[in-house]
Amino acid sequence: MREDPDFGLRLKEVADKITVALDQLIPPASGPEADLMRAMRHAALANGKRMRPFFLLEAGAMFDAPEKSLLRTGAALECVHTYSMVHDDLPCMDDDDFRRGQPTVHKAFDEATAVLAGDALLTLAFKILASSETHDDPAVRAMLIERLADAAGARGMVGGQMIDMLEGASPRDLNTITRMQRLKTGALISYATEAAGIIGHAREPERNALAGFANDVGLAYQIADDLLDATGDEAEVGKPLRSDEAAGKANFVTLLGVEGARQRVRLLAAQAKEHLAIFRNKADILLQSVDFVLDRTR
Amino acid sequence: MREDPDFGLRLKEVADKITVALDQLIPPASGPEADLMRAMRHAALANGKRMRPFFLLEAGAMFDAPEKSLLRTGAALECVHTYSMVHDDLPCMDDDDFRRGQPTVHKAFDEATAVLAGDALLTLAFKILASSETHDDPAVRAMLIERLADAAGARGMVGGQMIDMLEGASPRDLNTITRMQRLKTGALISYATEAAGIIGHAREPERNALAGFANDVGLAYQIADDLLDATGDEAEVGKPLRSDEAAGKANFVTLLGVEGARQRVRLLAAQAKEHLAIFRNKADILLQSVDFVLDRTR
Repeated sequence: MREDPDFGLRLKEVADKITVALDQLIPPASGPEADLMRAMRHAALANGKRMRPFFLLEAGAMFDAPEKSLLRTGAALECVHTYSMVHDDLPCMDDDDFRRGQPTVHKAFDEATAVLAGDALLTLAFKILASSETHDDPAVRAMLIERLADAAGARGMVGGQMIDMLEGASPRDLNTITRMQRLKTGALISYATEAAGIIGHAREPERNALAGFANDVGLAYQIADDLLDATGDEAEVGKPLRSDEAAGKANFVTLLGVEGARQRVRLLAAQAKEHLAIFRNKADILLQSVDFVLDRTR
Repeated sequence: MREDPDFGLRLKEVADKITVALDQLIPPASGPEADLMRAMRHAALANGKRMRPFFLLEAGAMFDAPEKSLLRTGAALECVHTYSMVHDDLPCMDDDDFRRGQPTVHKAFDEATAVLAGDALLTLAFKILASSETHDDPAVRAMLIERLADAAGARGMVGGQMIDMLEGASPRDLNTITRMQRLKTGALISYATEAAGIIGHAREPERNALAGFANDVGLAYQIADDLLDATGDEAEVGKPLRSDEAAGKANFVTLLGVEGARQRVRLLAAQAKEHLAIFRNKADILLQSVDFVLDRTR
């Protein structure tokens, strides 16, 4: 095992802080619309690794960025990630019944509530970022919002999800899948380090290094996810696996094979680490996060 | 007819400007995800009255607010209104096949595309507001975003839609329906005049007057809509009518009767006009908009 036990603790610590922040930021369940808030909480407060906020907080810490700004931005980012899963799980999309070890929102509630809870979580993300509590400088807030909207919109995450829905129209090759994943999952991971750079007033070479790191680690993470789907244990992962295989969908493992996919992850992990060289030992935690991704592929 | 022909021209002029702005702001259809943009355009560029942007532009004009700021904010507001209709029309929600005289997005495309197009339009709204092109002052942009997220979120429009979905659990009385409508449709209409006040740097008594006006005209507009649903002509309106009646849903007309509902609209219209008194003849167009709402109830 390469995983550092201290790294696992750190990851858990950030995840707990994000969950506490989300619990405070999502409105309490009350009034005739209480099920809406219950559904938002069901989705957002469930046990998650919170990898995107983790990248944001650890990258931000390298610039001594204020933790409150990082935490609130991380919570907003997690709202966007959560809403996308709630909508992706809908019967008209991936039709998944389980997520993070519990029923998906449309199973625990109903489809209409799942659509609305996703909508409300996306809206909440922008409300969090717009608030003066996130950052004193409104120019910083406006930039965080504009870049999040880019990462999450039609030319980012939602565009990637749209491409993913087209499966069946034509068989996908490695280029198509790589582009789809860079949009669908890569855009939000890139946003995590970009937001850290904005809040931390990083210089341009530092921002570029972070962008390169996020690009490589994001893709490595996705391939590791495909490997987990192909070789993992359902009880451990908390959701049904072999979903792509069952749907006859091409992914990195079906195209590269298990060994080829593992090799690709190792290559991307090495590249990701190289990007971090300019930060020297300040990047220790981010370096360990790369090993953490590698460990998921064993 | 109370309707002033000049008012009709003015309404049309604003609607056209908003459509042109949306055409420029929604990404062009390209790439494998092109259907996503086509669906966004199908929904957002369809023939609509653009009443919310109209209130925003006309209220903003009273403060000599820059038209570009008003237009972009109006376009963002229309993105939010449009996304909410795309999601409301889904089979798991109101299950409507026609809207603005054309097939709804899930009929013209499919359900997954409708969910994603709605998501992308909501995201685009915040991207538009966050851009420096909307206003020089990032503090103004951040406030426009925060208030829009409040108006559109779990304690605003989406909360109202959630209450609307609960019909059947218990019969609705006038208080419940009034609260539901103030959230579901009133919140965005109130945002229109609030945003005008923010961009126009209105003083507090002016903001309060606008808030009172929006509150009354918003509710009058909704009751007029229920009257149209009960007594209107399908071909003229461009969508199937008697939907509440068919679904056995209570609304203002089923609870107050046609004459009672008309009387309520007249009362609210009179109140709405009183709020505008402090603006003197600057409010001429907004006064005419009240008559326009009244005219819909004949």
